[in-house]
Amino acid sequence: MNVRNVLRYTVGEGSLAELPQLLKPHRSIHDGPVVFFIDEFFQSRPQIVAQLSISEGDKVLYVSTTDEPSTGQIDQIVEQLQAGGLNKPAAIVGMGGGITMDVAKAVANLLTNGGHAEDYQGWDLVKVPAIYKIAVPTLSGTGAEATRTCVMTNKRTGLKLGMNSDFTVYDQIIMDPELTATVPRNQYFFTGMDAYIHCVEALAGSYRNAIGDAYSRETINLCRQVFLDGDMMSFRNRERLMVASYLGGCSIATSYVGLIHPFSAGLSVVLGLHHCVANCIVMRAMQPYYPNAYKEFWAFVNKQNIEIPEGVARNLSDNQYEQLFASTIIHQKPLTNALGESYRDVLNRDTVKSIFMNM
Amino acid sequence: MNVRNVLRYTVGEGSLAELPQLLKPHRSIHDGPVVFFIDEFFQSRPQIVAQLSISEGDKVLYVSTTDEPSTGQIDQIVEQLQAGGLNKPAAIVGMGGGITMDVAKAVANLLTNGGHAEDYQGWDLVKVPAIYKIAVPTLSGTGAEATRTCVMTNKRTGLKLGMNSDFTVYDQIIMDPELTATVPRNQYFFTGMDAYIHCVEALAGSYRNAIGDAYSRETINLCRQVFLDGDMMSFRNRERLMVASYLGGCSIATSYVGLIHPFSAGLSVVLGLHHCVANCIVMRAMQPYYPNAYKEFWAFVNKQNIEIPEGVARNLSDNQYEQLFASTIIHQKPLTNALGESYRDVLNRDTVKSIFMNM
Repeated sequence: MNVRNVLRYTVGEGSLAELPQLLKPHRSIHDGPVVFFIDEFFQSRPQIVAQLSISEGDKVLYVSTTDEPSTGQIDQIVEQLQAGGLNKPAAIVGMGGGITMDVAKAVANLLTNGGHAEDYQGWDLVKVPAIYKIAVPTLSGTGAEATRTCVMTNKRTGLKLGMNSDFTVYDQIIMDPELTATVPRNQYFFTGMDAYIHCVEALAGSYRNAIGDAYSRETINLCRQVFLDGDMMSFRNRERLMVASYLGGCSIATSYVGLIHPFSAGLSVVLGLHHCVANCIVMRAMQPYYPNAYKEFWAFVNKQNIEIPEGVARNLSDNQYEQLFASTIIHQKPLTNALGESYRDVLNRDTVKSIFMNM
Repeated sequence: MNVRNVLRYTVGEGSLAELPQLLKPHRSIHDGPVVFFIDEFFQSRPQIVAQLSISEGDKVLYVSTTDEPSTGQIDQIVEQLQAGGLNKPAAIVGMGGGITMDVAKAVANLLTNGGHAEDYQGWDLVKVPAIYKIAVPTLSGTGAEATRTCVMTNKRTGLKLGMNSDFTVYDQIIMDPELTATVPRNQYFFTGMDAYIHCVEALAGSYRNAIGDAYSRETINLCRQVFLDGDMMSFRNRERLMVASYLGGCSIATSYVGLIHPFSAGLSVVLGLHHCVANCIVMRAMQPYYPNAYKEFWAFVNKQNIEIPEGVARNLSDNQYEQLFASTIIHQKPLTNALGESYRDVLNRDTVKSIFMNM
């Protein structure tokens, strides 16, 4: 395990204003335009987009967050950029949540490496450094700003897998808590819980190490400060959750998830539920497996008065339960981390179905 | 504040064995030898040095840790390397404690930037990237493996100041807890307390931010695990303290120290005491300023049965007290962080002397 850090980060109120300065040397060396991937939400926030000091010749692509990224979508974007003469932009900026930051990562890799997105789904398949890239998270929790992957669904093969590579890691992150002020409360909660839940799983697992544990503990600590507070979206709490997301991402680099993420992946693959809300739904059934985190999670939910969808995996067809079983049980490493080598003895078809029924 | 991270780190038992593999690409690209700076202690540990797979043509320099580095010493080393045709080694390895890691940093900067060490004492004076460098810490606590400085005393000007620069940051750290197994207990304690004390000062200060706080809290948490345990030097605790040192170093990058480091600097400059033991000596007088940390620090001392020197700054000459006063009070930023803008009202000559008398 040789962990690649994000090269530089800046954090705090007004840090977005540093973006033009950070892009400047790259614009001058490469004499090229910058490609901005921006969460479509910001189309209605021109005063924020204005802060990016987008130049003539730059390209702005608003990213839809209705669906999580697919390999086909990444290929399309790359073709579009190439057709517009943007094969080698001076830099790429990904401003948004996990989806937007992941799209920017994947495109940055493809522009320098060639080929198609699916060629790089896996581990260390990216061969040369990506375009220099900056993340500007506008949601907190997924940790996409810090990780070495960018999750994509391959609709042809059904595979949901990222380009796991040191080259996928961002060169610069800008963490400006102003940017999460307008996030809907539910979404703020769900994404924050992504960081919390990952770290709960990591600390309960059998694959452990001192640094992953340290990042996980402090991420959980920050989540407690935020979600047990009366106003989880105060400026200070938004700053804390931004840091929790980053440190949670650092934890992901050195640890494994457990039971919750595989079940959540099942909900995403079979029922199309978004990752972060799916995690929270899975928590409905996790009392036997993570009793302390279960209690704490529901304390967060009650304190913040959040509604977690219920019953999404009841009354499904046999075929759907079979799909849910298959797409959960496939996550060998996390499930071994949680339950040991013989996890399939615990998670047989009946148990898995009853867990989904309990959600 | 745009914080430069260490590019890569590896942690855990046996990670030293990865060093030859990590050096390999640099050896082949630059077709050059590697310069190893190794704490002189390891001259008596050939089985560890053998793991470094030192090649013919490489240069090994054993670093004395009797005195903290001086600018003159750095210049001498650079001249020696240049005279031996080693102007552009393929890589530099710094294996040791804070002193050795700092020497390697300073030399790596000078070899590419030219001139003398004192030309770069200050902030952002280093102009071009240093030689690629790897830190192998064999002591835990100073955080030198993670910081953007390398402390040097300039004997001509009396200035103790590092080359504060993003280029000073290591490209790679190897954290192998095997390497701290032979550290004398006292030294292990003193260096560990350097991380602890820095973070105590940071969290009590008025210049704060969410990420510095997060790193500081977790560093303190790790120190508690280590120093309240029966065997502070068990393998697990050595691994924890290595991580605490790294995260403590990350905290330094985003925070300020307070009252303890300036007084400790006074002891170093005037009485020649080493930084880490000097910090602990200062803690003798810190009950009024850091009451909780004072209590916890002495609980660590008692649990681990460590002797902290006492009375080192009693019965000095008037001239020495004047020097102590001057070399403490000069640290404007940390003292403002601890006591506010008017810190000189609190820390007048009499108060400063009585604090030194209490040590």
